[in-house]
Amino acid sequence: MSLTIKIHIASYLNLNHNHRVSNIASCPNFISTIRPKPFCNPNPLIPRTHIYKMPADHKAGAAPIIKSSLIEPDGGTLVDLVVPEGLRASKTSEAESLPHAKLSKIDLEWVHVLSEGWASPLGGFMREHEYLQSLHFNSLRMKDGTVVNMSLPIVLAIDDDTKSRIGSSPHVALFGPDGDHVAILRSVEIYKHNKEERIARTWGTTAPGLPYVEEVIASAGNWLIGGDLEVLKPIKYNDGLDNYRLSPKQLRQEFDKREADAVFAFQLRNPVHNGHALLMNDTRRRLLDMGYKNPILLLHPLGGFTKADDVPLDVRMEQHSKVLEDGVLDPETTIVAIFPSPMHYAGPTEVQWHAKARINAGANFYIVGRDPAGMGHPTQKRDLYDPDHGKKVLSMAPGLEKLNILPFKVAAYDTLEKKMAFFDPTRSENFLFISGTKMRAYARSGENPPDGFMCPGGWQVLVKYYESLQAEESSQKPAVLSS
Amino acid sequence: MSLTIKIHIASYLNLNHNHRVSNIASCPNFISTIRPKPFCNPNPLIPRTHIYKMPADHKAGAAPIIKSSLIEPDGGTLVDLVVPEGLRASKTSEAESLPHAKLSKIDLEWVHVLSEGWASPLGGFMREHEYLQSLHFNSLRMKDGTVVNMSLPIVLAIDDDTKSRIGSSPHVALFGPDGDHVAILRSVEIYKHNKEERIARTWGTTAPGLPYVEEVIASAGNWLIGGDLEVLKPIKYNDGLDNYRLSPKQLRQEFDKREADAVFAFQLRNPVHNGHALLMNDTRRRLLDMGYKNPILLLHPLGGFTKADDVPLDVRMEQHSKVLEDGVLDPETTIVAIFPSPMHYAGPTEVQWHAKARINAGANFYIVGRDPAGMGHPTQKRDLYDPDHGKKVLSMAPGLEKLNILPFKVAAYDTLEKKMAFFDPTRSENFLFISGTKMRAYARSGENPPDGFMCPGGWQVLVKYYESLQAEESSQKPAVLSS
Repeated sequence: MSLTIKIHIASYLNLNHNHRVSNIASCPNFISTIRPKPFCNPNPLIPRTHIYKMPADHKAGAAPIIKSSLIEPDGGTLVDLVVPEGLRASKTSEAESLPHAKLSKIDLEWVHVLSEGWASPLGGFMREHEYLQSLHFNSLRMKDGTVVNMSLPIVLAIDDDTKSRIGSSPHVALFGPDGDHVAILRSVEIYKHNKEERIARTWGTTAPGLPYVEEVIASAGNWLIGGDLEVLKPIKYNDGLDNYRLSPKQLRQEFDKREADAVFAFQLRNPVHNGHALLMNDTRRRLLDMGYKNPILLLHPLGGFTKADDVPLDVRMEQHSKVLEDGVLDPETTIVAIFPSPMHYAGPTEVQWHAKARINAGANFYIVGRDPAGMGHPTQKRDLYDPDHGKKVLSMAPGLEKLNILPFKVAAYDTLEKKMAFFDPTRSENFLFISGTKMRAYARSGENPPDGFMCPGGWQVLVKYYESLQAEESSQKPAVLSS
Repeated sequence: MSLTIKIHIASYLNLNHNHRVSNIASCPNFISTIRPKPFCNPNPLIPRTHIYKMPADHKAGAAPIIKSSLIEPDGGTLVDLVVPEGLRASKTSEAESLPHAKLSKIDLEWVHVLSEGWASPLGGFMREHEYLQSLHFNSLRMKDGTVVNMSLPIVLAIDDDTKSRIGSSPHVALFGPDGDHVAILRSVEIYKHNKEERIARTWGTTAPGLPYVEEVIASAGNWLIGGDLEVLKPIKYNDGLDNYRLSPKQLRQEFDKREADAVFAFQLRNPVHNGHALLMNDTRRRLLDMGYKNPILLLHPLGGFTKADDVPLDVRMEQHSKVLEDGVLDPETTIVAIFPSPMHYAGPTEVQWHAKARINAGANFYIVGRDPAGMGHPTQKRDLYDPDHGKKVLSMAPGLEKLNILPFKVAAYDTLEKKMAFFDPTRSENFLFISGTKMRAYARSGENPPDGFMCPGGWQVLVKYYESLQAEESSQKPAVLSS
């Protein structure tokens, strides 16, 4: 989302007067310290350990037909690449006999994404024909002529040594960062990794300082390896948040269980402030006005790689739980889950991925804001992307025609009316905005933002986080300064 | 095409033994000097001044339905943006009353391209929604849901002063480089010209030294202006080559007149050597084998902007005429015409434009070579694009499904057999390649290339051109060198 955050006062409260109280207070394991403690599920309708059991006759690679009544997964069936339990031992010993490639932490996040079908119909890391279509067309043409959206290259880079080690082996074992066997990549295809071209076509710039490029691509090998992925067991992080990592299959089951007749997804990588909440509640009201009886909000924070100055996942999850606890969002009609993808910060290109993945999870409405997946230009004093391009590109993107795009209405603090209201450009001088930088400055200094910017419980989570950060920073200062 | 050119000896001659002699010898205006003289049409079936007469009832903007039996223009009807003669006077005086923007020489080439419907269904310079789709998806979605290919942004840049001058006027007059009234742009939309993003997404690099960027984009204004184009009269260059500038409509009429049952287009911006000729003749043979009775070759040199070290258009046209005169290509089954587009040198992105435009001209087969529209990387010692990506991207490009893509078979000089043959990678050591640099070195030094590289008449055209260039260069040397 944008670096500029709009102040919100409390107009949504009228909507929420009959909200049920969250069950968070009754959660025995709830611990108020910020991290890295495990962490209570504020949503009464999501089981705390909800691990989907594969049918006994499931075969890895054979995608079971999982559909909700809301929206079809891309390609018609939801991809599931996790090997059934009965086959794990034999596949693991096969993996031991194969040449291997090592996965970075972020590669593993992509294995997770692929394994659960977020990228359906993609069945593994991209081969070259998929990579080229993604890079040039932001979409893939299927054998039957239909088109699915695929805006980010989901690729695995290997170096020269790994390429030699693989030689002509058709199958390759993938090891995790800790050396454990994670997956087998079958019928592999190795092709050149032209980093400059990948970066230019994905980000629309090659300026130094793009977070994903610096973290992942700059040091990556000069080859990409694609193939069909078989994941040996579900990817888990053991960080106390795995119960929030619901797969598209689990989310579809949950929506069906709740008898949702509309699912609207809200992607975010920042704390929820009241501007977001106003928008989400307003969206629900609009959907009810349109005749839907039971619209469910999928509040869907991104859980993979984020840049260093973003608020970490565990803090965000605690902040989100407070937002539900404080009644800003209604737990009855909200599902909070983690979207396991890493961030690219690739603006209009990435927002398509964010939307497409939510189709696979069963969302048929997608809220898009100002400058989605955007950031400041790394070397120039401007936004990297035109803040309006994200929603424009999203609304025209191939393969997303079946998704209802809901553009973000801008909410800001109305200084005349002394309350939060949707921004009126004809009297822009009466509206006040708070930038992300300003918000962080407030939280760091312990100063409160204007009333109604964020619910007090949520704000306290951030204040504590920045306090802990400052404590950490000062403890890292040298004990004796050199003169 | 590639910087590497394959040597060809003469295997095609067997195919051409019964070729009719070109009519070039009988052309009274044929002049053997190289440039800038007017220049005889070597093709007996193209009238020397073939100016299509618009029907009396034609209205500008109303696209007449022009179809050949072979392939539909994109969008179903061929766009024609030239104002009918009866309305020119009134439109020209309207143009005089409007705020204006000035066109560069290359902008004018784009006006030409648009006016004749090469970019059908595009009806003018792109508005932002078209620009964004082109940049991100290389295609446009039409109102009826169909998709047409549109890989290059066809845009008009204006500077801040021009933007202020236009103010809120809905219509803008476009003046040519000489100050003449060229067109009216209607219902204009002005939007930001983010050059970095445009360059990165179009070329896959932002390295300095891209010819089109340096010539056109670097100095262009910070705004783009889109709208519906009305061109006041057909664009002419008065360089003796206008009779080769056949519009898509004229080409379709010619193909119908010749009762072509297949049209295969060959895009080039270089002299035709015998490797090209072998390929074109082989393609015709393959089409005959497939059962076509009358395949026609559209030999279609690009006529707009090219980089400084490419061979200029007039020299190329004379060289092409020699190729037909020498019987290397058969004038009976070949149409030589000029494609008015400027070159981007944008590889896989641009080759789609080259193919798409030929659909609009009625070609249903398109020959694609190694590294189409490619060049060396401007700052690194490598090809800018993977030489195989062009044909791969082309074969998967949205909106080009109806076009038959014919990949280039590589021909090279077989040193064992002492003749030209299709390259056999299992004994690559027996094949010899001549790079473009080497070819230019031969032509500059007056040395002949190996027998069969190019027909002697065509080669002499190049030798004379490089001699004239050297004469020009030495005449520009200072008369007295400073010590």
